Amino acid sequence: MMSNAELEQLRNRLDEINSELLALISERATVVRDIGVVKEKQGVPKFDPEREKKMLEKLVAENKGPFSESTIRTLFKQIFKASLDLQSAEHKKSLLVSRKTHKEDTVILLPQDVVVGGGASLMVAGPCSIESEKQTRTVAAALQKAGVRVMRGGAFKPRTSPYDFQGLGMDGLRILREAADEYGLLTISEIVDPAHIEPSLDYVDIIQIGARNMQNFELLKAAGEVNKPVLLKRGLAATMEEFLHAAEYIMSRGNTQVMLIERGIRTYEKWTRNTLDISAVPILKQESHLPVLVDVTHSTGRKDILVPCAKAALAAGADGIMVEVHPEPATALSDAAQQLNIDEFNTFFDEVKASGLYRQ
Amino acid sequence: MMSNAELEQLRNRLDEINSELLALISERATVVRDIGVVKEKQGVPKFDPEREKKMLEKLVAENKGPFSESTIRTLFKQIFKASLDLQSAEHKKSLLVSRKTHKEDTVILLPQDVVVGGGASLMVAGPCSIESEKQTRTVAAALQKAGVRVMRGGAFKPRTSPYDFQGLGMDGLRILREAADEYGLLTISEIVDPAHIEPSLDYVDIIQIGARNMQNFELLKAAGEVNKPVLLKRGLAATMEEFLHAAEYIMSRGNTQVMLIERGIRTYEKWTRNTLDISAVPILKQESHLPVLVDVTHSTGRKDILVPCAKAALAAGADGIMVEVHPEPATALSDAAQQLNIDEFNTFFDEVKASGLYRQ
Amino acid sequence: MMSNAELEQLRNRLDEINSELLALISERATVVRDIGVVKEKQGVPKFDPEREKKMLEKLVAENKGPFSESTIRTLFKQIFKASLDLQSAEHKKSLLVSRKTHKEDTVILLPQDVVVGGGASLMVAGPCSIESEKQTRTVAAALQKAGVRVMRGGAFKPRTSPYDFQGLGMDGLRILREAADEYGLLTISEIVDPAHIEPSLDYVDIIQIGARNMQNFELLKAAGEVNKPVLLKRGLAATMEEFLHAAEYIMSRGNTQVMLIERGIRTYEKWTRNTLDISAVPILKQESHLPVLVDVTHSTGRKDILVPCAKAALAAGADGIMVEVHPEPATALSDAAQQLNIDEFNTFFDEVKASGLYRQ
Amino acid sequence: MMSNAELEQLRNRLDEINSELLALISERATVVRDIGVVKEKQGVPKFDPEREKKMLEKLVAENKGPFSESTIRTLFKQIFKASLDLQSAEHKKSLLVSRKTHKEDTVILLPQDVVVGGGASLMVAGPCSIESEKQTRTVAAALQKAGVRVMRGGAFKPRTSPYDFQGLGMDGLRILREAADEYGLLTISEIVDPAHIEPSLDYVDIIQIGARNMQNFELLKAAGEVNKPVLLKRGLAATMEEFLHAAEYIMSRGNTQVMLIERGIRTYEKWTRNTLDISAVPILKQESHLPVLVDVTHSTGRKDILVPCAKAALAAGADGIMVEVHPEPATALSDAAQQLNIDEFNTFFDEVKASGLYRQ
Repeated sequence: MMSNAELEQLRNRLDEINSELLALISERATVVRDIGVVKEKQGVPKFDPEREKKMLEKLVAENKGPFSESTIRTLFKQIFKASLDLQSAEHKKSLLVSRKTHKEDTVILLPQDVVVGGGASLMVAGPCSIESEKQTRTVAAALQKAGVRVMRGGAFKPRTSPYDFQGLGMDGLRILREAADEYGLLTISEIVDPAHIEPSLDYVDIIQIGARNMQNFELLKAAGEVNKPVLLKRGLAATMEEFLHAAEYIMSRGNTQVMLIERGIRTYEKWTRNTLDISAVPILKQESHLPVLVDVTHSTGRKDILVPCAKAALAAGADGIMVEVHPEPATALSDAAQQLNIDEFNTFFDEVKASGLYRQ
Repeated sequence: MMSNAELEQLRNRLDEINSELLALISERATVVRDIGVVKEKQGVPKFDPEREKKMLEKLVAENKGPFSESTIRTLFKQIFKASLDLQSAEHKKSLLVSRKTHKEDTVILLPQDVVVGGGASLMVAGPCSIESEKQTRTVAAALQKAGVRVMRGGAFKPRTSPYDFQGLGMDGLRILREAADEYGLLTISEIVDPAHIEPSLDYVDIIQIGARNMQNFELLKAAGEVNKPVLLKRGLAATMEEFLHAAEYIMSRGNTQVMLIERGIRTYEKWTRNTLDISAVPILKQESHLPVLVDVTHSTGRKDILVPCAKAALAAGADGIMVEVHPEPATALSDAAQQLNIDEFNTFFDEVKASGLYRQ
Repeated sequence: MMSNAELEQLRNRLDEINSELLALISERATVVRDIGVVKEKQGVPKFDPEREKKMLEKLVAENKGPFSESTIRTLFKQIFKASLDLQSAEHKKSLLVSRKTHKEDTVILLPQDVVVGGGASLMVAGPCSIESEKQTRTVAAALQKAGVRVMRGGAFKPRTSPYDFQGLGMDGLRILREAADEYGLLTISEIVDPAHIEPSLDYVDIIQIGARNMQNFELLKAAGEVNKPVLLKRGLAATMEEFLHAAEYIMSRGNTQVMLIERGIRTYEKWTRNTLDISAVPILKQESHLPVLVDVTHSTGRKDILVPCAKAALAAGADGIMVEVHPEPATALSDAAQQLNIDEFNTFFDEVKASGLYRQ
Repeated sequence: MMSNAELEQLRNRLDEINSELLALISERATVVRDIGVVKEKQGVPKFDPEREKKMLEKLVAENKGPFSESTIRTLFKQIFKASLDLQSAEHKKSLLVSRKTHKEDTVILLPQDVVVGGGASLMVAGPCSIESEKQTRTVAAALQKAGVRVMRGGAFKPRTSPYDFQGLGMDGLRILREAADEYGLLTISEIVDPAHIEPSLDYVDIIQIGARNMQNFELLKAAGEVNKPVLLKRGLAATMEEFLHAAEYIMSRGNTQVMLIERGIRTYEKWTRNTLDISAVPILKQESHLPVLVDVTHSTGRKDILVPCAKAALAAGADGIMVEVHPEPATALSDAAQQLNIDEFNTFFDEVKASGLYRQ
């Protein structure tokens, strides 16, 4: 048919145009790069919005169709941006958290040969708050017996109300350290003030940055300047992009031992305290080389679904689980409703291990 | 300085390249259009993903940098898409709801010279559910006295539980019509089944499509095929884009008398039943030519903030307000906690009018 | 010490008061029940808000402290409500979806000895839309080869825009049925209009109710009146409570063969299309006796995390997985970006089976 | 009728029981209070979960119906809690932010007779970031001319990425102060580190706590210990309850000059940067005595709806508006897309004033 020949001819012209466009766009990128070199010498910023505006005006004035003015603006903005991105990409480091920068999984080596990431699963357990020596030692003994290696316990508690129990502070850290040492455990505890990072180093094996402080950038910077692993919690309503950039704040200061922990996000659903964003686990593992844990207590706020949620987290690729355990949850000074007692924890841990998903 | 001359030269070359790119992209669009004409004759679809894929492979193979393969793919996909959009834009109507299609505000003429849009404010009030003749007539009398022209009242109630009061059905519509006629009011009531649209026409002056049915497309299509104004509620968690497309379903079937109503969106905040999305009012007015109302009862679920919220809605540009009124809210068969009683309604309406924001 | 004896005495008095309160509250419940019996004979509603109001006023008037008026109101409202709930509980059936009503897991028996629930995992796969006989037969052949028993395929497509492909309608159902029969598969397809439920019965083995129609109660009622299994999708932003009540609409009409499917909820996170609410799986399994599936395609909108998400769903206790498969996703008329091609599906299914979490 | 007499009799018995319950519950509260006094002397905590547990067990054991065990537990827990709350209420201060504690509106007196709250509206304007002396002086001159009294400008910028412009720090504060002094303006700027509160006092007339730091409790405490007004921004996804408690942290340390500012909350809607929660304005004004402002720039992220949103905020009762203004938004180092230029700001402010809603 006539039209097939016609079609062929039109398509050939299209291919020619494509090739010419490619040649021009590539040349354009080279010219932009050369301009960048000159600007760098002059010490002026590479992105010049005024100049870009003028180029667009010129193109719009020249445009005889068939594209509308707004399509021309959109297309050329994209072409301009690509050239500029090329420059930035050459000059600015890619994100340190990115798997593009660092292909292999980051494996964090803790004292006593405990490792995070790289295949083995990590169980982190302990009370919401350090309340007393007795309470802390009771949990520590139980964790040791259960084979747990890392004990959590809050000394500085960020609480919604100033009249709620605020934690025992440095005393709490000391109590945690002593109990952990007695039972051969490592410690993790949340630090909330940049000024406390340094003094905490003797007491914690892992510094925790809490959800409410995920974008407390001064705290992140302070944590980035010490040589101690950091566990960074996802903010209450943080996007994954913000979460990774928060980790980047720590890494950009030199501390590469960063672990991420998903702890549920804020949604409209009321039957759980937060919504455990399980997809975040494989996405964070894919985008980043850092270990990813899941806090099953805070994400759900319900003791009755901890086992299936922990199994789901491990099946999705999580490197570890965090869970709250208290000798007498009913009397706890914080999070009374959602902490496991010691028997419940033992059952929980046994069921998680029995699933075969917990890699020891 | 040397480098300034150099910069000037590079910039001139950039301008030349820009112009050449513009010429090529424009020619490309023409070629794609010609191909479309041929394809239309042949009756084959214009978008040919296989052909697009081959063109991209060819370009990637030709690419010698400095752009990466992925940048080349992205840029050319955008160029391809612009050409294709151009074709669609010429053939497919733009959205009927769009202000680009229809610059002037749509003004809806109801019986008894009641108008919606175009400057005057509309107050729509009445009980959540039609429960009895007495209840309905009591409200109707009060509304007439207050100067309200349009009465709402639910006859088909979409309730979360099948065991809750489901409304009086067609009987409810008849009761509403009779009370409204007695007191010189117009009626609005929600229809939930495509099969009920036709039978409802004798009873309602405005068909309401509820939030839970905003994307019940069969119902939207049925409402689009009658000659009766439609009030479309925003879905519980619908984006504005989805909301406007739902209105487009109605308009695309021929019914141009569509009103939009913001009724709060679902968020994590618990002190209000929903979150009144006040920005939606100016955005919907800007994107679309349709009248925009605000349901202050459903968006807040709180009687104590109805006056400031109604004032905010009018200040933001809303064409009307909907509010629930019941003779004895405590005994109401639905929404008992949030309906105003008649005295409360009178105070509410007086305060809204006193603000000067309600244009009579 | 003096004070310990004093404490003992005060505690004894407290115990006495508790016992007296218990006796009175229990007697109160009996009296309320007797009143209910009289009212039932008289045909008047049991809940009388006016009477309740008067009782509260009387109590407030009598109150001499130390409780404030508002505490007295709150406490007695709770006592009143408990008595009333007791009455309702005796008269109204508990929810049919509830595990309290029906302890054992509901197991749905499909033709060809396919079962849903009760231990075995179900894989449901197929294209987003039925587009042609060829496309449908290609997928059916691949599914049969992979050992899949149930094929999905949309014939009535609820699309955001009225100008997008709306599905092939009854023709699509016929094509799906024929392909399924040829390859020994069962069929599942979404129905969107109550009037189509009946005609669809010859073509589908499972009726799907889509997310946008989860609270289209007329459709739920129509699906409740046929003898055909129903797969109910969770709404875009539905709470679990609303989801279970939507299922109750179906069951309350007599159809007990209902399956639930989590498909992601709408949140602020943008790196996934929706947020897969993994906690919903164990909670729905606990609250209800119905089978629970997870749609990994719609919940994530990303092909690159389907394997970990499917594994997480099964680890959390899901009875099955739904996934979209298309012979040439790039050319699909809907959901082009997120459907697996046949090779990708085979890899996906192999990896899910290899995890040991898929119970065959 | 027989049954009416019977009903009467039953109702009389009900009234008697109610009175007896009231007497017992009141006596119970007195006994619990007496126990509290003894415990206080002994220095043991008043809430004794073990004792409560035993009382519940005893009651359940005694229970002969008709209430179920779980109803008895729920009812008595509520009775126990009411007695305990009574004790706390007597000992613990009510919230300082609450209007119950402080009936009158808090009016904040700034230098130069500028007041916030108490009737007059406040316009706060200025650039997102302080970038240079010239930029800052240009805006300051324009604000003075427009009649604005308070200038904003960020010196410490909390940015998602560590590689984005982080602000000029203390230098920025100095530039802001100098420009403000030159043009007779007051200054407001965000402080992000507890250690910077003290040094900032010479430069800012109002300390701003940003959204990301709303629950940085160490920062709140530090701001609570100085004698300088504080503007507290609502967190990205903070509930109103959390927002008020964050303000309580500041007030509980002694600083009573606190202003709240709604700046949009995070939702699924994508056509605005955040969702302006307009209902928060009347609710915060009702719950609290503090001034409430609205940041129209951050809540919407769109220049095209600033006027209707500012009018809505004022109509809803806001005491002031915050908006971003930059001499050349296109070249801004942060928030380039959403800042007004000076002409746009003048038009914006004129339209807001012309509405009559801005009280000068």
